[in-house]
Amino acid sequence: MDYFIENCLPYVTLAGALVALLFALFSASKVLKFSEGNDTMKKISVSIRKGANAYLKRQYTIVAAFFACMFVVLCLMAVFGLLTWFVPFAFITGGFFSGLSGFVGMKIATASNARTANACIESLNRGLRVAFSAGSVMGFTVVGLGLFDISVWFILLKFVFRLEASAITGAMLTFGMGASSMALFARVGGGIFTKAADVGADLVGKVEAGIPEDDPRNPAVIADNVGDNVGDVAGMGADLYESYVGSIISASALGVAAFGSLKAMALPLVLAALGILASMLGTFLVRTGESTDQKQLLRALRRGTNTSAVLIAVLSLPVTYYILNDVRFYFAILAGLVAGVAIGAVTEYFTSDTYRPTKKLAATSETGSATIIIGGISLGMLSTILPILIVSAAILLSYFVCGGGIASADASRGLYGIALAAVGMLSTLGITLATDAYGPVADNAGGIAEMAGLDPAVRERTDALDSLGNTTAATGKGFAIGSAALTALALVASYIDKIKEVAQKAGETVVENFNLMNPVVLTGLFIGACLPFVFAALTMESVGKAAQSIVVEVRRQFKNITGLMEGKAEPDYASCVDLCTRSSLREMVLPTVIAILCPIAVGLILGYQGVVGLLAGATASGFLLAIFMSNSGGAWDNAKKYIESGVHGGKGSDSHKAAVVGDTVGDPFKDTSGPSINILIKLLSMVSIVFAALVFKYHIF
Amino acid sequence: MDYFIENCLPYVTLAGALVALLFALFSASKVLKFSEGNDTMKKISVSIRKGANAYLKRQYTIVAAFFACMFVVLCLMAVFGLLTWFVPFAFITGGFFSGLSGFVGMKIATASNARTANACIESLNRGLRVAFSAGSVMGFTVVGLGLFDISVWFILLKFVFRLEASAITGAMLTFGMGASSMALFARVGGGIFTKAADVGADLVGKVEAGIPEDDPRNPAVIADNVGDNVGDVAGMGADLYESYVGSIISASALGVAAFGSLKAMALPLVLAALGILASMLGTFLVRTGESTDQKQLLRALRRGTNTSAVLIAVLSLPVTYYILNDVRFYFAILAGLVAGVAIGAVTEYFTSDTYRPTKKLAATSETGSATIIIGGISLGMLSTILPILIVSAAILLSYFVCGGGIASADASRGLYGIALAAVGMLSTLGITLATDAYGPVADNAGGIAEMAGLDPAVRERTDALDSLGNTTAATGKGFAIGSAALTALALVASYIDKIKEVAQKAGETVVENFNLMNPVVLTGLFIGACLPFVFAALTMESVGKAAQSIVVEVRRQFKNITGLMEGKAEPDYASCVDLCTRSSLREMVLPTVIAILCPIAVGLILGYQGVVGLLAGATASGFLLAIFMSNSGGAWDNAKKYIESGVHGGKGSDSHKAAVVGDTVGDPFKDTSGPSINILIKLLSMVSIVFAALVFKYHIF
Repeated sequence: MDYFIENCLPYVTLAGALVALLFALFSASKVLKFSEGNDTMKKISVSIRKGANAYLKRQYTIVAAFFACMFVVLCLMAVFGLLTWFVPFAFITGGFFSGLSGFVGMKIATASNARTANACIESLNRGLRVAFSAGSVMGFTVVGLGLFDISVWFILLKFVFRLEASAITGAMLTFGMGASSMALFARVGGGIFTKAADVGADLVGKVEAGIPEDDPRNPAVIADNVGDNVGDVAGMGADLYESYVGSIISASALGVAAFGSLKAMALPLVLAALGILASMLGTFLVRTGESTDQKQLLRALRRGTNTSAVLIAVLSLPVTYYILNDVRFYFAILAGLVAGVAIGAVTEYFTSDTYRPTKKLAATSETGSATIIIGGISLGMLSTILPILIVSAAILLSYFVCGGGIASADASRGLYGIALAAVGMLSTLGITLATDAYGPVADNAGGIAEMAGLDPAVRERTDALDSLGNTTAATGKGFAIGSAALTALALVASYIDKIKEVAQKAGETVVENFNLMNPVVLTGLFIGACLPFVFAALTMESVGKAAQSIVVEVRRQFKNITGLMEGKAEPDYASCVDLCTRSSLREMVLPTVIAILCPIAVGLILGYQGVVGLLAGATASGFLLAIFMSNSGGAWDNAKKYIESGVHGGKGSDSHKAAVVGDTVGDPFKDTSGPSINILIKLLSMVSIVFAALVFKYHIF
Repeated sequence: MDYFIENCLPYVTLAGALVALLFALFSASKVLKFSEGNDTMKKISVSIRKGANAYLKRQYTIVAAFFACMFVVLCLMAVFGLLTWFVPFAFITGGFFSGLSGFVGMKIATASNARTANACIESLNRGLRVAFSAGSVMGFTVVGLGLFDISVWFILLKFVFRLEASAITGAMLTFGMGASSMALFARVGGGIFTKAADVGADLVGKVEAGIPEDDPRNPAVIADNVGDNVGDVAGMGADLYESYVGSIISASALGVAAFGSLKAMALPLVLAALGILASMLGTFLVRTGESTDQKQLLRALRRGTNTSAVLIAVLSLPVTYYILNDVRFYFAILAGLVAGVAIGAVTEYFTSDTYRPTKKLAATSETGSATIIIGGISLGMLSTILPILIVSAAILLSYFVCGGGIASADASRGLYGIALAAVGMLSTLGITLATDAYGPVADNAGGIAEMAGLDPAVRERTDALDSLGNTTAATGKGFAIGSAALTALALVASYIDKIKEVAQKAGETVVENFNLMNPVVLTGLFIGACLPFVFAALTMESVGKAAQSIVVEVRRQFKNITGLMEGKAEPDYASCVDLCTRSSLREMVLPTVIAILCPIAVGLILGYQGVVGLLAGATASGFLLAIFMSNSGGAWDNAKKYIESGVHGGKGSDSHKAAVVGDTVGDPFKDTSGPSINILIKLLSMVSIVFAALVFKYHIF
């Protein structure tokens, strides 16, 4: 039996990956059968597609240059014996597949926006099916490519190069670093693009000129729609590819440390394959009637995700027992799964306008924009309590149930348990991502419906889909953040293992004093806790800067193009797209480079103990900041929508104006800075692992 | 010589305390000799005084009830042998003196606001001298009472009760808990009052009705001025009393742990006495000419503070050598002193409109309130880097120079070094607080000048003084935050010592696993890092709620009192004062109670290892959040003032309106939540220390 687990399972998981990719292909073909609608719609859709393509092409060029530099650095380190030769290549593939995930997602999203709008002419259910199928393409591409990449490397390293277990996981962690770097570029760049366009379009269009959202007279409207695709779709694809892969490989690495065998390493891969199966079954259950009632639509999606979650909860019990002969680890997986759902529910509670917090927030708009800003910030900060408690409970449970003790000697199984919790949380990513990625498609569809002047009933339908997308996006963010915290912790544990391995090779011993009263650990903790703040600041500032340039350009066009406001002349959409592209690409480099250099610099000064402090500090404060910013942003957005539904004076009232200010502040919070921090905290750990040998050899303290 | 140090020095420091108190009395008599001006000014001043008195009376009633409850709890714990009988009494005195510091400050501030305004009629220099003397009363009362309290307890416990060194410091730490509890009530309650009044007055008065700040027609104008006194003065007094006392007693406690003798315990007291001397000399150097030029005024104040800092830097070298026979500890003191000045300079750089960040922030107002909010938040977040690095450097330096090692066995001297750095940072508190406390006096003077319709030249002079006050307040905040971080760390070390002591008495051993990979420590860290966020959220929400009630009341008066806008009828000032009083007192209880219950609850669940994680997490995230919020708020305030000086359209322009929104959001940031967090992180540690025996005996994990 052990023979089967160690030698055949990797091929099984590879097969699972291929099934996911085939399913993505199948969903794509389903979407493409639908019509793109009339000529205007086609034209708009082509403009969006062109803009998104142009952006991604330029983004990939810059990223490729970065990867080439890093490749050279890693090769040099391999020459000096600080790394194995697999590392540079693993790094490249991780980046490649992460980028590919985003690219495929963008392709299908831009191909299905007009189709969704057109399907909404016929019925809401049809619209939902097109948009959701497009989301599925993205979801299953991400999990398929992720599991494919891991399985192939595993097979290659084990059966072709015949490496030991710990060497295999070592190389695989590097490919996580590649994926994280790519994801950070995509999230930051795309996030700046989309929010600069959105903020810019809103500030001049909605607030100054008083024209509705997505009005074709607004010169930034195409850029805004392009942004949804390059930020919310391509960025999210790369991001979640990274999360998925990161959780699996960190669990594999800790499994090897805990059991010394390949069995525990194989379990996360098998869970991932099971999750793909469960997700696929779940997608077939998503369909709705004709009511645009939020609750009914949500129920349609929930039916799919909940069924998948239950399936995986049931299936993973026998599988875990079969592979590890130990049922305790099942509870870690279950804890992760439940924690993910619970954080999602909390996120929804704090950000959906069906609950009290967002309703209360909407009421603060009556005393102006200052009070809604204060209210939103305190709402977001307050919303961190429950997720922190949920994740803490998951950590304690998965650690102690799996047999981890307080003394560090018997910690390895407990740490493996924590890593498995992260895998459990992300196991149904196929379908949760599908429900998440369909949102921007619906958003775009609404834009196209508006610009093409379709019947208001169509816009109502796309709005219903879009609004639901906000809720599922909130849930998705909960998963992303929760899994990021658990994975980051697992990676810190892997880092310590790596340092021990390096020390053993050098014939030295590791001073395992990661005690909080060790000043090196403590200052590392301080600096680490500061990093997410700095990162959030830089990305927000970038959005602000880019948005200001859009504002200036839109104002210029309104002023200089005669007949624009009367709808007699066309604005110059391309100049706004180009402006967003240039500024977001310029701004995306610095934050990412800081994220990569910081752990190396801290390591060279404070040593590996300082790095452990850094990683723990960044994880704690990053987790909090990410939740705070995402939830504040989400609540502002929905408070605005709630007011638009007619309360507190409705559209155009002073309350609404105040709420628009809140929403505008929330845009970079929830779609640029917040989600980037999730990637940041993992990237820091992965970079530390890759540069562990260097830091071990050279450091001041 | 040792005999002299151990037996006579406490009397010397007591004498130093008395000198400080005498100096405060002398400054007070100087202030009271000036005239309060004409009848209108007297009348206004009396209203403010009455409001402030009424508020404090009701606040102290509530706080007294809280202290009575805590006294009973502590007595019960003493009955069960979980505490010594000194603890309940020490707790009460700490609270009493902290409250007294605030009370005296408020008394002198409300006595000197009209006097400052009247002195400004004559000359700027005269105005500065009155306001600065009032600040000095507060500064020297705080340090005098602090050192008095510590010296008396020390003498009592040592010479009357003849306790051992560790028992002395144990009791003294409790009195820190009393001071911190009182300080938190004062800061939170006063902070909510002042900002509710300020925000409420601005939102309706400036934004809606379009009347200038401090216009007598605004019904909330007296409440606003009362707020300056109960929040910025009484709150700050209690706060800094707590900081001062906390740094000294935590250093004393660690000194005993490191040296096992009273010598190291006496050093912080002696440094404090020296600091009083240096501060007194410094105050004589503060005087200015007739120019309202900011730089010249600032130079006048800086002459005083810098001279004091240099004096203490010189004097502490021989004293340290004399007491400890070891010059290394001097460098820890110096590191703290320099770090304090450096953090102050960074704060000034980020918040003063003479530098780039605030100027850039002011420019973002041109694209509306959303961009200035985003800009201010990112400015504040970005401004955390340098203070974090400065404090980290101070920690590493003071730890390693004083002979702390990486292995925990030889850590005690290093930790003592960190605590001494905090003492060094606060040693010149007498004068830095004087320059800080004079700000609200000048602010009030400006209000009185406006309300009494004095010559615009007078208002110009008070504005010059007030504006300078913003800068010195920023510097003061830097000191408060920096010292809070260092003191909090010292208190964590004291907590671990306390746990060891408790264990020894119980005949058990302590598992000293405060390792970051211990899941109990880690979850403690997560929860601790979350606390400042929750605390900030609660206090901001309170300000928002209270402000909204003021807005409603002011709108009501504008509508119902005929002739009010034309200046023919008087508004009902008292109702606004009363409203602020009630809502701030109601809102101040919950955050403080949470701060006290949280470490106990976490301790009972996660055990003492979890508590150590909690304290470290709260310190790291609290430090960051406090700096972020203070600096964002300060920068918004000054960006608004900068625009009022005529750039970006000046007063009344759209840019100015946007800047007012920023300033309004910044108000609770910088004057309620931010400064409260400093107290919070120390209170958490002190509560943990007092309840250590309970937690050691009963806990789940």
